[in-house]
Amino acid sequence: VSRRRRALLGLEAGLGHFRLASRRSRALVRHRGPKPGAYPGALALPEGAPAPEIRAVRYAPDRCEEQSIASPDALSALRVPEGEGVLWVDVRGFGDRAALERLGELFRIHPLALADAVHVPQRPKLEDFEDRHLLVTRMARLTDRRTVELEQLSLIIGPGFVITLQERPEDPVLEPVRERLRAGVGQIRRKGSDYLAYAILDAVIDGYFPVIEALGETLEDLETEVTARPRPTTLAAIHAVRRTLLVLHRVVWRQRDALNALLRDEHSPLEPSTRVYLRDALDHAVQILDAIETSRDLAIGLLELYLSTISHRTNEIMKTLTVMATIFIPLTYIVGIYGMNFDVMPELRWPWGYAFVWAVMLAVAGGLLAWFWRRGWLGDRGDSR
Amino acid sequence: VSRRRRALLGLEAGLGHFRLASRRSRALVRHRGPKPGAYPGALALPEGAPAPEIRAVRYAPDRCEEQSIASPDALSALRVPEGEGVLWVDVRGFGDRAALERLGELFRIHPLALADAVHVPQRPKLEDFEDRHLLVTRMARLTDRRTVELEQLSLIIGPGFVITLQERPEDPVLEPVRERLRAGVGQIRRKGSDYLAYAILDAVIDGYFPVIEALGETLEDLETEVTARPRPTTLAAIHAVRRTLLVLHRVVWRQRDALNALLRDEHSPLEPSTRVYLRDALDHAVQILDAIETSRDLAIGLLELYLSTISHRTNEIMKTLTVMATIFIPLTYIVGIYGMNFDVMPELRWPWGYAFVWAVMLAVAGGLLAWFWRRGWLGDRGDSR
Amino acid sequence: VSRRRRALLGLEAGLGHFRLASRRSRALVRHRGPKPGAYPGALALPEGAPAPEIRAVRYAPDRCEEQSIASPDALSALRVPEGEGVLWVDVRGFGDRAALERLGELFRIHPLALADAVHVPQRPKLEDFEDRHLLVTRMARLTDRRTVELEQLSLIIGPGFVITLQERPEDPVLEPVRERLRAGVGQIRRKGSDYLAYAILDAVIDGYFPVIEALGETLEDLETEVTARPRPTTLAAIHAVRRTLLVLHRVVWRQRDALNALLRDEHSPLEPSTRVYLRDALDHAVQILDAIETSRDLAIGLLELYLSTISHRTNEIMKTLTVMATIFIPLTYIVGIYGMNFDVMPELRWPWGYAFVWAVMLAVAGGLLAWFWRRGWLGDRGDSR
Amino acid sequence: VSRRRRALLGLEAGLGHFRLASRRSRALVRHRGPKPGAYPGALALPEGAPAPEIRAVRYAPDRCEEQSIASPDALSALRVPEGEGVLWVDVRGFGDRAALERLGELFRIHPLALADAVHVPQRPKLEDFEDRHLLVTRMARLTDRRTVELEQLSLIIGPGFVITLQERPEDPVLEPVRERLRAGVGQIRRKGSDYLAYAILDAVIDGYFPVIEALGETLEDLETEVTARPRPTTLAAIHAVRRTLLVLHRVVWRQRDALNALLRDEHSPLEPSTRVYLRDALDHAVQILDAIETSRDLAIGLLELYLSTISHRTNEIMKTLTVMATIFIPLTYIVGIYGMNFDVMPELRWPWGYAFVWAVMLAVAGGLLAWFWRRGWLGDRGDSR
Amino acid sequence: VSRRRRALLGLEAGLGHFRLASRRSRALVRHRGPKPGAYPGALALPEGAPAPEIRAVRYAPDRCEEQSIASPDALSALRVPEGEGVLWVDVRGFGDRAALERLGELFRIHPLALADAVHVPQRPKLEDFEDRHLLVTRMARLTDRRTVELEQLSLIIGPGFVITLQERPEDPVLEPVRERLRAGVGQIRRKGSDYLAYAILDAVIDGYFPVIEALGETLEDLETEVTARPRPTTLAAIHAVRRTLLVLHRVVWRQRDALNALLRDEHSPLEPSTRVYLRDALDHAVQILDAIETSRDLAIGLLELYLSTISHRTNEIMKTLTVMATIFIPLTYIVGIYGMNFDVMPELRWPWGYAFVWAVMLAVAGGLLAWFWRRGWLGDRGDSR
Repeated sequence: VSRRRRALLGLEAGLGHFRLASRRSRALVRHRGPKPGAYPGALALPEGAPAPEIRAVRYAPDRCEEQSIASPDALSALRVPEGEGVLWVDVRGFGDRAALERLGELFRIHPLALADAVHVPQRPKLEDFEDRHLLVTRMARLTDRRTVELEQLSLIIGPGFVITLQERPEDPVLEPVRERLRAGVGQIRRKGSDYLAYAILDAVIDGYFPVIEALGETLEDLETEVTARPRPTTLAAIHAVRRTLLVLHRVVWRQRDALNALLRDEHSPLEPSTRVYLRDALDHAVQILDAIETSRDLAIGLLELYLSTISHRTNEIMKTLTVMATIFIPLTYIVGIYGMNFDVMPELRWPWGYAFVWAVMLAVAGGLLAWFWRRGWLGDRGDSR
Repeated sequence: VSRRRRALLGLEAGLGHFRLASRRSRALVRHRGPKPGAYPGALALPEGAPAPEIRAVRYAPDRCEEQSIASPDALSALRVPEGEGVLWVDVRGFGDRAALERLGELFRIHPLALADAVHVPQRPKLEDFEDRHLLVTRMARLTDRRTVELEQLSLIIGPGFVITLQERPEDPVLEPVRERLRAGVGQIRRKGSDYLAYAILDAVIDGYFPVIEALGETLEDLETEVTARPRPTTLAAIHAVRRTLLVLHRVVWRQRDALNALLRDEHSPLEPSTRVYLRDALDHAVQILDAIETSRDLAIGLLELYLSTISHRTNEIMKTLTVMATIFIPLTYIVGIYGMNFDVMPELRWPWGYAFVWAVMLAVAGGLLAWFWRRGWLGDRGDSR
Repeated sequence: VSRRRRALLGLEAGLGHFRLASRRSRALVRHRGPKPGAYPGALALPEGAPAPEIRAVRYAPDRCEEQSIASPDALSALRVPEGEGVLWVDVRGFGDRAALERLGELFRIHPLALADAVHVPQRPKLEDFEDRHLLVTRMARLTDRRTVELEQLSLIIGPGFVITLQERPEDPVLEPVRERLRAGVGQIRRKGSDYLAYAILDAVIDGYFPVIEALGETLEDLETEVTARPRPTTLAAIHAVRRTLLVLHRVVWRQRDALNALLRDEHSPLEPSTRVYLRDALDHAVQILDAIETSRDLAIGLLELYLSTISHRTNEIMKTLTVMATIFIPLTYIVGIYGMNFDVMPELRWPWGYAFVWAVMLAVAGGLLAWFWRRGWLGDRGDSR
Repeated sequence: VSRRRRALLGLEAGLGHFRLASRRSRALVRHRGPKPGAYPGALALPEGAPAPEIRAVRYAPDRCEEQSIASPDALSALRVPEGEGVLWVDVRGFGDRAALERLGELFRIHPLALADAVHVPQRPKLEDFEDRHLLVTRMARLTDRRTVELEQLSLIIGPGFVITLQERPEDPVLEPVRERLRAGVGQIRRKGSDYLAYAILDAVIDGYFPVIEALGETLEDLETEVTARPRPTTLAAIHAVRRTLLVLHRVVWRQRDALNALLRDEHSPLEPSTRVYLRDALDHAVQILDAIETSRDLAIGLLELYLSTISHRTNEIMKTLTVMATIFIPLTYIVGIYGMNFDVMPELRWPWGYAFVWAVMLAVAGGLLAWFWRRGWLGDRGDSR
Repeated sequence: VSRRRRALLGLEAGLGHFRLASRRSRALVRHRGPKPGAYPGALALPEGAPAPEIRAVRYAPDRCEEQSIASPDALSALRVPEGEGVLWVDVRGFGDRAALERLGELFRIHPLALADAVHVPQRPKLEDFEDRHLLVTRMARLTDRRTVELEQLSLIIGPGFVITLQERPEDPVLEPVRERLRAGVGQIRRKGSDYLAYAILDAVIDGYFPVIEALGETLEDLETEVTARPRPTTLAAIHAVRRTLLVLHRVVWRQRDALNALLRDEHSPLEPSTRVYLRDALDHAVQILDAIETSRDLAIGLLELYLSTISHRTNEIMKTLTVMATIFIPLTYIVGIYGMNFDVMPELRWPWGYAFVWAVMLAVAGGLLAWFWRRGWLGDRGDSR
């Protein structure tokens, strides 16, 4: 039972089937809401969350300083006036309520925005708190053993600063942005906090491409398996891929909505020159949705192929049984006749009786075989094995 | 019959399957409308309804008084001018027509609003009667034996007061709000009747989270059952969960619509600072819808798994029959031949005749077995048991 | 054949299944349009329609006069100036073209409006002819033998008058309105023609509630039947209910649209104070749609239950065959061996040969039974009968 | 093969099944577009099209002249100033490129409009070329042997004239309009070219009613066939009807859209008094869509009935086999036992041995029959034959 | 395996089935996004792309010059002031990053526009960069062996110039446009760059017609195959066609959206007189979508026909087995009885015993045959073979 069930959940598969890291996907179902009646804006921190690591990156066109921050209070010294540079505060781990609340005070973040940012999982969305914007997104990445992990990344975008909040310390998605800041490649250091937010969102969205690609490869492996030897585990694996696609589609779809809201928001923090870039990121999101839909069509096609292969096999079994039974049932009857012990059975006395019965039996068998042949039930005529 | 039927309705299940308290769910189907042609605004009270218990909570930033009210007339003394505090009138039980009508007069409630508030069940909705708003919602809760109960809660929101009406005296959902009022935690006492309405709605919506969680657990139990020993009752249980999810989805969907209407209503009673909180409650409703949809996908996946497991079993039965019959039918025919009583049957006289027949039979059986083996029909090669 | 077909159409059912009066439902399919190329606005009267019975009710806050009218000309004397009372002309039967045309002239009704009002069946709709409004609705009622009848009722609403037109003389739906007029209950006599129109529409809509309730009961009976003894007629009955629900959903949906159009129409004849009442009627229509949708979900659930019950039975039959055949086929083969007539068959001579064969046969049968037992194919282990 | 295939395409059917004239329906699939890169506005005339017959009808309130036109040049003399009458030019057959181009010049028709009008098939649509409007519609009619033919009719509506273009010379749909013009019935001669266009469109739309009716009758015949003797050809016929309904739905849907566009177009050629008539025609289109949808529901219901009837039959076959095999297999085994030739078989020597075996066999058969009876597998208990 | 799989992918088919060139269709699934975190606007050139061939066509009403360009710098001399002619730069092959970037500089193309134009595959879309517009489209063409190839064609439309970019050097779709330019047919040389863009788009869209036609023919071949000898490869081929239709539908759908956006764009580069032509191209796109949808309905109908044919065959096999087994099982039992060796079996001693048994057996067989006949299980009565 347990092996099959794990296969069903896509947690293990001989062929290296795609799987969705269970922590987040289950969370979608087992969503634990706030304690009913709780104080609105109260921070619902995950139990056992690690203490936050805070890193600050302050940059302007001509410089870029990075430092690790012990306490949020140190950040007040790092704030830059709007237009003179950008401060990126990167918070990982939600284990310290006081630090998070202090951070909220320092940057005048609405309590509900902060509560949403640290409450995992939220659906991707944009919330507009006047000159601060909360954007909740979900990062996807492939871990080593073909597992997809979805992790929430919240951005709080304000004048002259961007705060990113995520639950765990690993950070493969944002690192390239930080490197571009350090290197000063392109115009990233010459632009404001809105462009930084765009760069982060772009990295988040482009992180879905390798995942979709891995899914496509899994579907190709499954197609080989379906045609070669379809098994219940194959079916379970196809369903697992479909479910993963469903989850990804929903997440990316909402991400797209959130980006779109950011583009169209009346208090949008985006400058016109950044808007064209965000539109490009939005376009990538739409491309990912397209690729997911195409994969979904393939998965549905595989299901149909699986079902028709199985029903073809059942048919073949039926045909075999029918041919065997239909030929031997009359023959057995014939030999039964001459096994009777009647005193008077003239045929038994004939010298050629036995030979005659053999002739009759061969004729019956031959006739039936010919009839089956005509109907295409013999051999595998009619299928492509 | 009756056991199976109860299982179908989800009213009983060995595995502790989720169930929807039948009273409300049936009511959705067996909706009894008003007597055709009845006076509009006439109160259609449920038969045998208990007499109303009326509790009043009057509060201001610096105080909070609670009292039980015998007759609605006592409420006129408790009314507070707008801006100087809030009066919350909590009515449970619709057994006294005169009292309800008196309440309506006192607070100048439109007869249609009052009629809707006491008519059970209504679909969740917002009705705007100028400076009074009727909001019909549905509370969900888990009773002890994994039963979901849906109960209607109507709010009438006016300047300086909120009236809540519900059919039964139990009150697990609103109690936390009352406690926050008593304790004066947060800003609840500093704000107006619109914030109280928000707090109540928030409590109602957050009450769905544990229900969805219980559903998720039931689905996991069912998944185990499907893979281990699928039975018709399993199927019925999956259908019961699906149906419950359907009902919940519909209720929460409309609740969301009603909240949205409250946010966007042109005479909305909400102050701007409360709006951001209600938006948060709306967001929770959307999260619940998401979780319901994910559970629904899982339930559909379980159905597919059930069906494919069943068809796999049928296939196995067919294969067994075919293998047994196909091997023994020719053998039986062979032994039948030598059971014939012809006078002239040379083989019967041969000293090695019997041994020769055994050799033929072993060869036939072996040949057939080899053929079956090649086609993968032997053993359970090809499935994962 | 004919019995089964009647059951399919829901025209007859041992269990008292729900049925839709065939006249109207067929009409939906066999819709006979106007003669192609006919004069637009020409009255397409149903053949063999009864002569119209015309009843006029003239009322004002302080009085209510009812009279039967022989010819439409008598109505000109009864017209009341707007604001001084309301005239309700109630026409039943479309057998007299001249009378209907005279009526149209008297009340200045657009020829197309009149043609639509007497052309049966129309889909429910609102047509706006400046200060006259045509509202086509469909009344539903249960006749004695669980039959639903849908009959078209057209309202022409103008300043100071309402004309209702229906095809047949029976009138169970409008009678309560007439009684409220006579009794002067509520504000009906104090309000204008728009309120009368509302009262009639409210009666029409509330007439669907008992129909939906009867449908719910039929579904419960069918559920019992499916679990106890599923038969093709059960399936036909479920399909009949589904089809009836489909027709009702379509009719009520359009009725809702028509009411909505009446509420939102820019020349709407409704006064603001009547609007809130019509909104209530609209809300009832939405409740009916909800109940229909819930019933439809139940019907689909029943279908799935039926199908899974049937497939479970087929499976059981297969299992029985397989168990019997698989046990006896090898045994028959064994006894066949010792029925052979070879001269040299040492076993036949052994004193314990017969007993030995019995032992072998018992071992084979026992082994197979044990194997079946392990696979869960024996008895009904695994199902809930 | 060929007979079955023709049945599938609905081209032939013993029961007189409905069929769609193949020319047009194939055209929908095999649409031949313009030669890639062709000159836009170039006339793509169908090959082998007959030479155009041009008929002109010129009318005013007090007169109506009809004449056959040899060359389009003759039309210039017939043009009437706007407001002083209407000229209807009726072109049938697209065989003469020069004549069509001359027509286009004379009436100042945009080349693209003319190209669309003569390019068959177009989807129904409205194209607005300032003061000329192109309306492409599809006429439906039943030919004698229950065949539906769809033929394109294009209208070019301009001030003071309407040009209709169709491919073939037969004209059953427009003839009634011409007769109304001759007879001067109604207001048709008193109104402008917009009313003529309405009258033609009304005739086109009302021409769908008899087609839908014929479809309804075919569905009733098929229902009888399904319940009496379901065959693969029945299935093919149901699918053929469904496909025809699909095509008709699509055509009428677009026709409705085109009419709607004509009503709402900002340069609409319709006068306000004609608008109300076109709204009526639009309403007829909606009624036809309703009837098509109802028929489609019936067709789907028939499919489900067919499938359940077939599966019921398979089930019955299985039951028969199981009952026969299950009863006789053990009996055959028993008689096999006493056919063995062991020297020592005490039962064979008992005087009542034979009788005893009969008793055992009857007991076994009776027991099995009783067991089957209890399970409802015997006879047709449980079905309605 | 490999043969079947190729058939599944539609890469090979005895009947000449339709196939989609794998390179592009796989690309839809295996979309390789930009390297996460890459510089926005960086050109992501396909690996191994051929060096660009650049051709320039400069034309005015009275002349048309074509030349092959070695380096983009030569283009600066060819630019024409707006209104004095049009320059069409046709780039094929993306192998030279520097040349492409120089092209972008020369024509002031936004880096994101250029990056999108050379990034293959993009979904068809319109991007508006003020006075430059990027339009990404997909060309379809049939290669010799019934293969469909989709290739991306990007248009950059600016004042006085159009740049087209495509990946490969073959150019069957645009050649006719170039020929019209050379010949000066129609008004193409008299109009601006917007008309050239229209002409190119029209050629792209009309290129889908032959593809759809080929698909229609494939469906007809498959229909013949399904009715004559349905095989798993047939099913795979139907699925392949369906999948191709799905891909084409998606591509054309988006193309239509892009054209529509071009028509409605507020900075649209189209002059009013060109707009009416583009509307015509849009209409062609809608016609193609219609034809695809009709083909899809046919493909679904074929699937249903396949499934019902297969299930009909299974049914026939079952019937044959049942008839054979049911007739011979009782007969075999009877002959078994008289093969028993009891000392006392009176029948064996009767002189007419043997004849009597034959009579009984014939009666049993005859009775069963009659029963089968009545039930319609004999022969193929009831099907149309």
